Amino acid sequence: MSTSLLDQYFPSSRKVYIQGSRPDIRVPMREILLTPTTGRFGSRPNEPVRVYDTSGPYTDPSFVWDPQKGIPPLRRAWILERGDVEEYEGRPVQPLDDGYTDAAEWRKLRGIGNEPGLSTIERSNTGPKRPRMDAASATAVGNRNGHSHQVRNGLAVQRRPLRAKPGRRVTQMHYARRGEITPEMEFVALREGVDPEFVRQEVAAGRAIIPANVNHPESEPMIIGRNFHVKINANIGSSAVASSIEEEVEKMRWAILWGADTVMDLSTGKNIHTTREWILRNSPVPIGTVPIYQALEKVGGIPEELTWEIYRDTLIEQAEQGVDYFTIHAGVLLRHIPLTANRVTGIVSRGGSIMAAWCLAHHKENFLYTHFDEICEILRAYDVSVSLGDGLRPGSIADANDEAQFAELEVLGELTQIAWKHDVQVMIEGPGHVPLHKIEENVRKEREICHDAPFYTLGPLTTDIAPAYDHITSAIGAAVIGWHGAAMLCYVTPKEHLGLPNKDDVKEGVIAYKIAAHAADLAKGHPRAQQRDDALSRARFEFRWRDQFNLSLDPHRAMAYHDETLPAEPAKTAHFCSMCGPKFCSMRITQDIREYAASRGLTLEEAVEQGMREKAEEFRREGGQIYQEAWPEA
Amino acid sequence: MSTSLLDQYFPSSRKVYIQGSRPDIRVPMREILLTPTTGRFGSRPNEPVRVYDTSGPYTDPSFVWDPQKGIPPLRRAWILERGDVEEYEGRPVQPLDDGYTDAAEWRKLRGIGNEPGLSTIERSNTGPKRPRMDAASATAVGNRNGHSHQVRNGLAVQRRPLRAKPGRRVTQMHYARRGEITPEMEFVALREGVDPEFVRQEVAAGRAIIPANVNHPESEPMIIGRNFHVKINANIGSSAVASSIEEEVEKMRWAILWGADTVMDLSTGKNIHTTREWILRNSPVPIGTVPIYQALEKVGGIPEELTWEIYRDTLIEQAEQGVDYFTIHAGVLLRHIPLTANRVTGIVSRGGSIMAAWCLAHHKENFLYTHFDEICEILRAYDVSVSLGDGLRPGSIADANDEAQFAELEVLGELTQIAWKHDVQVMIEGPGHVPLHKIEENVRKEREICHDAPFYTLGPLTTDIAPAYDHITSAIGAAVIGWHGAAMLCYVTPKEHLGLPNKDDVKEGVIAYKIAAHAADLAKGHPRAQQRDDALSRARFEFRWRDQFNLSLDPHRAMAYHDETLPAEPAKTAHFCSMCGPKFCSMRITQDIREYAASRGLTLEEAVEQGMREKAEEFRREGGQIYQEAWPEA
Repeated sequence: MSTSLLDQYFPSSRKVYIQGSRPDIRVPMREILLTPTTGRFGSRPNEPVRVYDTSGPYTDPSFVWDPQKGIPPLRRAWILERGDVEEYEGRPVQPLDDGYTDAAEWRKLRGIGNEPGLSTIERSNTGPKRPRMDAASATAVGNRNGHSHQVRNGLAVQRRPLRAKPGRRVTQMHYARRGEITPEMEFVALREGVDPEFVRQEVAAGRAIIPANVNHPESEPMIIGRNFHVKINANIGSSAVASSIEEEVEKMRWAILWGADTVMDLSTGKNIHTTREWILRNSPVPIGTVPIYQALEKVGGIPEELTWEIYRDTLIEQAEQGVDYFTIHAGVLLRHIPLTANRVTGIVSRGGSIMAAWCLAHHKENFLYTHFDEICEILRAYDVSVSLGDGLRPGSIADANDEAQFAELEVLGELTQIAWKHDVQVMIEGPGHVPLHKIEENVRKEREICHDAPFYTLGPLTTDIAPAYDHITSAIGAAVIGWHGAAMLCYVTPKEHLGLPNKDDVKEGVIAYKIAAHAADLAKGHPRAQQRDDALSRARFEFRWRDQFNLSLDPHRAMAYHDETLPAEPAKTAHFCSMCGPKFCSMRITQDIREYAASRGLTLEEAVEQGMREKAEEFRREGGQIYQEAWPEA
Repeated sequence: MSTSLLDQYFPSSRKVYIQGSRPDIRVPMREILLTPTTGRFGSRPNEPVRVYDTSGPYTDPSFVWDPQKGIPPLRRAWILERGDVEEYEGRPVQPLDDGYTDAAEWRKLRGIGNEPGLSTIERSNTGPKRPRMDAASATAVGNRNGHSHQVRNGLAVQRRPLRAKPGRRVTQMHYARRGEITPEMEFVALREGVDPEFVRQEVAAGRAIIPANVNHPESEPMIIGRNFHVKINANIGSSAVASSIEEEVEKMRWAILWGADTVMDLSTGKNIHTTREWILRNSPVPIGTVPIYQALEKVGGIPEELTWEIYRDTLIEQAEQGVDYFTIHAGVLLRHIPLTANRVTGIVSRGGSIMAAWCLAHHKENFLYTHFDEICEILRAYDVSVSLGDGLRPGSIADANDEAQFAELEVLGELTQIAWKHDVQVMIEGPGHVPLHKIEENVRKEREICHDAPFYTLGPLTTDIAPAYDHITSAIGAAVIGWHGAAMLCYVTPKEHLGLPNKDDVKEGVIAYKIAAHAADLAKGHPRAQQRDDALSRARFEFRWRDQFNLSLDPHRAMAYHDETLPAEPAKTAHFCSMCGPKFCSMRITQDIREYAASRGLTLEEAVEQGMREKAEEFRREGGQIYQEAWPEA
């Protein structure tokens, strides 16, 4: 998929950009062109509908993608011109970063060559040590930023990492608090249709975050907060059992095409450093990770072998690559472990279980908790947001809203304030599995305890009995929790609890969650949300079938379903569908009713009130004729 | 599909019957057998889980199905022994009942023969006029009830209709109000796990209905009411454009296999009488219809040609066949029509639009409203429940909860009391398209205005933007409205707004709605609901993969998804899955943690409190070993 992506998946859509206050602030939108209303419905053009667009340059017909070169680093100029970061040599990449403990094995793999997807990672030393770093060159696309040397991870783009200069904090929260509206904030404001100053206030207050690592200049700024569009995250990632780097990059591109606002790379097993590098260089959306997964790989998968030093090193490794937010399970404390003893499903968060095992083995407090200040010092040097993990989230209906879950939430509230002290942007992760009547309590408590930091929830699933359909069980919970105030919804695919999602599953999950997020936006009364519903419903009422398809989340599937029973081309303009056939089409009959009045210069009210029997006779005759003209029955 | 249906779709399930107070009260349940817990999780058997079973005799391995003979008329003895019905000649079936106006055409079709599915309907006069009607023979199966003659609709079973003796009312509400617990009520009580007297009280109060036409003895009693399991309805039916009788019978059987509690036959076009006859004789669930559809066919599809006489005749025709509930759009009044003038999608109910067109053409009040007392007199003679149609339900988010919708609801409240005066069982239909924040108001108003009559809603869809995924947009709304008190949820399939559902769509729709109904049951705290969730979650935690699949709504799909990444047989007992792989399995690690304490005779609390460094050392060593033993990585 490349230049024809829009044509391929979103017919009659075109990529447009809203121009900001400076030439390099161009906010992408997808504009859906509509056909005019004609015939019995009147005669008027229909305004195009603009929708939020997460798909990045891939849907821009002028963009030519070379995965080795990555996508344009659009934020790099903004980052550099603030003057508060410095380029530095960076931590040397090691075989262990990709899961190789055997140096000989690693050498052997390196020798195979530079094919993308192989774990032949080694930072090249042949390139220029100090590439040009002025704003002008930095806005150029990836393949022209001064690093054309081919390196051993298969990527052509290779930048030395940036970090805050000594004593500086480079987070969007920091800028917001000192009253500054950054290009990122303006970008977000245009994207959301709100005032930039409002964005600044929300970020300053901690009610919203803009995940934007200085080392991920490819990302198009987006905001996560209760007072903005509800966002969705798609998880991808290989495991020890399945998947490859190419597949994961492709899943990322596929997820954002359908509407994922962020992507979490949850890879485990081998090659996770390289997988992440490929994803980041090609991702226009913020990327999240759970660094403890990689740290655990580095100690051979044995939780009790984890150390703060290994974890810290992993944070820096990933921050230098450009990860935008880290899930950190710093709220799982020793005293919480007994609270899970009588649970039906114990601890279901991978990170939570790893940290609980570590705590118990060492009989020490969680090192993520005891070192949280140091963690924040690292995060603020790159503007990595922290997503405080819910290591004790319920994994079944039986365990929802229990003592363990809420005990951890109290700790997350405490950690939120520590992070904010460092100007680190924070969101709070939430469950999991929760029956409908216990969902609102989760939001209420989160807001109270965590001081209105954005809530980022996984589903929740509203029942346990439907594996293979958990995108649906959880879309129900996601819509409800989004309505009550969750700011981002982590998708669940049909494979949840069963296996790794493939590309089809990613799409099903993303679309189910676009539905949940949009339903929440409507319920929250987001001013822009209903435009698309109204445009689609009007198209439906006026039998503008193609507009109905094109305005939908998945135009081709809508059209394919329509065509299954009425495939002929004239059916695309027919004033009925196969559900009811011509005689039973309620919308058609409604239109007959409206025309009956209108053709007589009456409102429906007048037509009813006057009670003219004559006119009724006429309508009967004409109505009869209308139905006789109907599409011949099959 | 026949005797092996359970084996085929629900492995490790068996059909069981709960015996009631008399031999012929046998309430079907599906019992899911579980494997014992073994190994590190202890050693204990796991009780089978019984689930509500809508699938009828088709899942009984001792039942041999002959579609021409229909299924056993299990209620016939109960109906006859009450002594308040009489058998009578019945209304002669006419060519027009199947949509044939041309007598010559009809003769020709009759001549073709007796193949099922052809519209060769004529009630035979060769059979005995007065078959034996004592209870003993009536409990026999359909092919032995005294009517073995082959008739021209292709069915072997042919009973003369029953109706109330003069001056009698034969509705479950009537019996309940006079303090009688019928076999139907006892059946329902056993099925729901409640006291029969409670069932009686709910039916007497009008808070619940048991749709049970005396001419549909094949139906297994079920109840629709806020204080019982939330039910789901599946719509089937051919249209002028597509489908056949065989397909529709098969869709009915397919829908109930997956869990539909009632089925509405919404056929339009030709052969609708015969289609309905085939469905009824083979349906163990109540069948609903919208009689105006057939009435409209009889007048050539021209709404203004409808008359009360044609409609009345159609009601009797369908009541004699055994339809259990009728949707009647008696609440659409002349004065409501102007209220729809500024709607985005006008009138989207077929019945509503037909009646509105009729009202306006004649400038007369809706004849369903003006004749409602007579309608009730017919209904009470057969115990057909009335489902008061929401002809003005919103068809888009923009139109939700508007004046037109609630004006009609007021009329439905008035009609409810008229029906109750006749002891006719009533439910109230609801929307439609409603954003999340406006759902609760629908239930509150319905309960208030309609005096707590059961609420039967279509979805509602919580956004308009996802045609092809409206099973999901509406499952969200359905779960929420069910939680707030809707008693039955009418499913929506992925084809909604696009085309007629095929068999696959029916399954997708039913399962999405089983999820919604179950989520609602959990949220309402239904005492039986959580058992299945807990059993499944325990199986999940203990890596009893097969139990997890078998307890799910769709075992084969769950297993297939699991097998996509880990197909090998040992993976069915592996203590991890492909999502996380062996090292990252949180449930496995939780179990390690629990075992660490248990193996030392400690609770988790003690293990934490004692803080024994020695033990921590031991765990580290043993833990290391556990992970080294893990499933070899792929």
